[in-house]
Amino acid sequence: MRFGLLLIGDELLDGKTSDANTKTLGSFLSEKGHKLAHALFCHDDLDAISKSLGVLYQNLGCDVVITSGGLGPTPDDKTKMALAQYFKRDLVEREDVAQLVGEQYRAFGREWNRTTNSYHIFPKNFETLKNPVGLAPGLFYLQQGRAIACAPGVPREFKEMLNASILPKLEANFSFLRKKGERLCVCTFGVPEEKIFFELAPTLWRDISEFAEVASYPRPMGVDIVVRKSENSPDDWKNKAQKIIENSAVAPHIWQIGELELPQYLFLLLKEKNLTIALAESCTGGLAASLITDISGSSKVFKGSYVTYDNELKVSALGVKIETLKSHGAVSTEIAREMSQGTYEKSNVDLALAFTGIAGPDGGSVEKPVGTVAISVTSKFGTHAELFQFKGNREILKLRFALRGFHMVRELLSKF
Amino acid sequence: MRFGLLLIGDELLDGKTSDANTKTLGSFLSEKGHKLAHALFCHDDLDAISKSLGVLYQNLGCDVVITSGGLGPTPDDKTKMALAQYFKRDLVEREDVAQLVGEQYRAFGREWNRTTNSYHIFPKNFETLKNPVGLAPGLFYLQQGRAIACAPGVPREFKEMLNASILPKLEANFSFLRKKGERLCVCTFGVPEEKIFFELAPTLWRDISEFAEVASYPRPMGVDIVVRKSENSPDDWKNKAQKIIENSAVAPHIWQIGELELPQYLFLLLKEKNLTIALAESCTGGLAASLITDISGSSKVFKGSYVTYDNELKVSALGVKIETLKSHGAVSTEIAREMSQGTYEKSNVDLALAFTGIAGPDGGSVEKPVGTVAISVTSKFGTHAELFQFKGNREILKLRFALRGFHMVRELLSKF
Repeated sequence: MRFGLLLIGDELLDGKTSDANTKTLGSFLSEKGHKLAHALFCHDDLDAISKSLGVLYQNLGCDVVITSGGLGPTPDDKTKMALAQYFKRDLVEREDVAQLVGEQYRAFGREWNRTTNSYHIFPKNFETLKNPVGLAPGLFYLQQGRAIACAPGVPREFKEMLNASILPKLEANFSFLRKKGERLCVCTFGVPEEKIFFELAPTLWRDISEFAEVASYPRPMGVDIVVRKSENSPDDWKNKAQKIIENSAVAPHIWQIGELELPQYLFLLLKEKNLTIALAESCTGGLAASLITDISGSSKVFKGSYVTYDNELKVSALGVKIETLKSHGAVSTEIAREMSQGTYEKSNVDLALAFTGIAGPDGGSVEKPVGTVAISVTSKFGTHAELFQFKGNREILKLRFALRGFHMVRELLSKF
Repeated sequence: MRFGLLLIGDELLDGKTSDANTKTLGSFLSEKGHKLAHALFCHDDLDAISKSLGVLYQNLGCDVVITSGGLGPTPDDKTKMALAQYFKRDLVEREDVAQLVGEQYRAFGREWNRTTNSYHIFPKNFETLKNPVGLAPGLFYLQQGRAIACAPGVPREFKEMLNASILPKLEANFSFLRKKGERLCVCTFGVPEEKIFFELAPTLWRDISEFAEVASYPRPMGVDIVVRKSENSPDDWKNKAQKIIENSAVAPHIWQIGELELPQYLFLLLKEKNLTIALAESCTGGLAASLITDISGSSKVFKGSYVTYDNELKVSALGVKIETLKSHGAVSTEIAREMSQGTYEKSNVDLALAFTGIAGPDGGSVEKPVGTVAISVTSKFGTHAELFQFKGNREILKLRFALRGFHMVRELLSKF
């Protein structure tokens, strides 16, 4: 069974908005052992939508197409018209849909009638899908074994409708969707892709490929090796693949066998060990704190962050010494050290992590080029500070700095 | 001329990675008055890539296809093979490419020879494109008026190669690409899409559509109305459209006629007025600071942020009163007030902005549900605090809180 995603919206193709729905649907299907075969973007244009549906079903062989976008109230929302055209179903005023939409509006404390918008105009025979967090209903239709499900483009509405309405509908119609798939994800850190597959473990790819599918994903910090079951995999494919990787020279660079993002991994580890953390951030400018506070429940381990972007604040909020700033400069292990020590003393935590560096594009020098960062951790075991060098633009560097710091904490946690 | 983008990579379809390249190419073309017609994702699979190329050129009528991904060193990188197959050009060892790759490696302080990887194996007659920030070269080929340009999938390499190599190559071959396009972007805030187009300005869409193209983009905070030139637009289409919008009841909700993101807009305004800002963040958890520090040069206006996630830190770092916490709770205009006042006193800035709220999914109550936020600004004009209510998941709420706070500062700046 082949799944396709059609993303409808001018804003996705003219650079206004980043698409989040491909990732949502991709991980959703991947967790269940299925693959999203293709995703295709098209403009809010009747012919473009209808032609794109044809491409997905006919040229790219999809059995199930999920669409996102074009269900809103403005004249550039044309998904329903295109569906009517492609599936040759008339668009009509539907009593059942009018009732559903009215209820939906009332649930949000708002009123709806047939002049508010045309949400009740629906292709004949199409089923409605409830929108748990928005106002426009979704659509579902099955014709000659081919299914279509349409959700709004707003990422949150898309995700919630996928879980609450689309999946149950697909599972009801295609029983094999109910089984859970699997993959093995081995996360490494500190060695580039080429070194892994050409120097450290030159036969790894070939060896695993004999009984399973291998893929390599370079991430902002480290490389993930992902193994998936193939059609002729033996029952113990997962153990077999894991052993091959763990017996290779890649082993010392593995930090996780699993699927967690590093901030989430760190959060769970801190929670398990009942430890708290606070940060002092200069070059990461709040990003490290924001990555942690994206996690629900992070207040259990995270106390706060002193984002001391300005040197004046490093002195007043953290007690960094003016002499140290003068003699070593703000980007130095000495300042990182004083920042993490200051944070440790002021915040009543088990661990204090501090960053000071140059995210660029300005501010670099020959001795300390853009990409230089000093990171320091203070705990009951004392303070450890280190200087690193990374490449990338400003946003990537902020992220790499933050992740490198999290790895420093992760490594220290084995002592606790 | 129709542009298509082919995004190659398992990681994009299985939810491991978010695509950033569609946005990059989309805004790049949009700024020049061109449209990206389609973007299509496919797996690292020889047949899938080659079939997708066919779909873009033949079924979707693209003249120029840009590909991203599949140029790396591991066996799942199959773009060159697929190109050779689709365009019927042999893959051969190329001396000129070997030389280029060698130079590239040396520029990064690394060594390369023909066993390092197969970067020098290249389809016959294809031109190389220099990679300004990475190791794998790109490809360019023109056959019967159809062009293909291939860049690595890593967002930064894709973007830099687009600017440095792909655009010059396309401009050299298609002269009309050199002219600059235009659009009018009117950013509103505080009214939903439906209210704009059905209540406040019910004829706006139709009136503008008579001489230009209209689109409506709901953003995390506000709605953008975008107008583009159409084939029969008069010379003054832009002024005409702007007048229609400004003479409608939408006018009081416009905060910008232009294309800047709010943090960038705020940064420029603060810089122009020579003002500095510091933050106190609870529920936004560092995100507000991170949005500002994503901007290069932000240190000119931004001093820092006290991310006082824990109440203890609100007291010790900002001087928030324990009695106020007890009597009003951490999420209250009273606490927001004390946070922004404390920040103002401690940071030697012109403006202090503070957030305290509930990003959820836990922590809500009947009186203060998830999505509640108190925001306060302190300046020489005193302190102004307000309570707001938003909807969304944790990540969206953090963003909405931050943006709402930035709007509060923006509004206050007219007084300075």
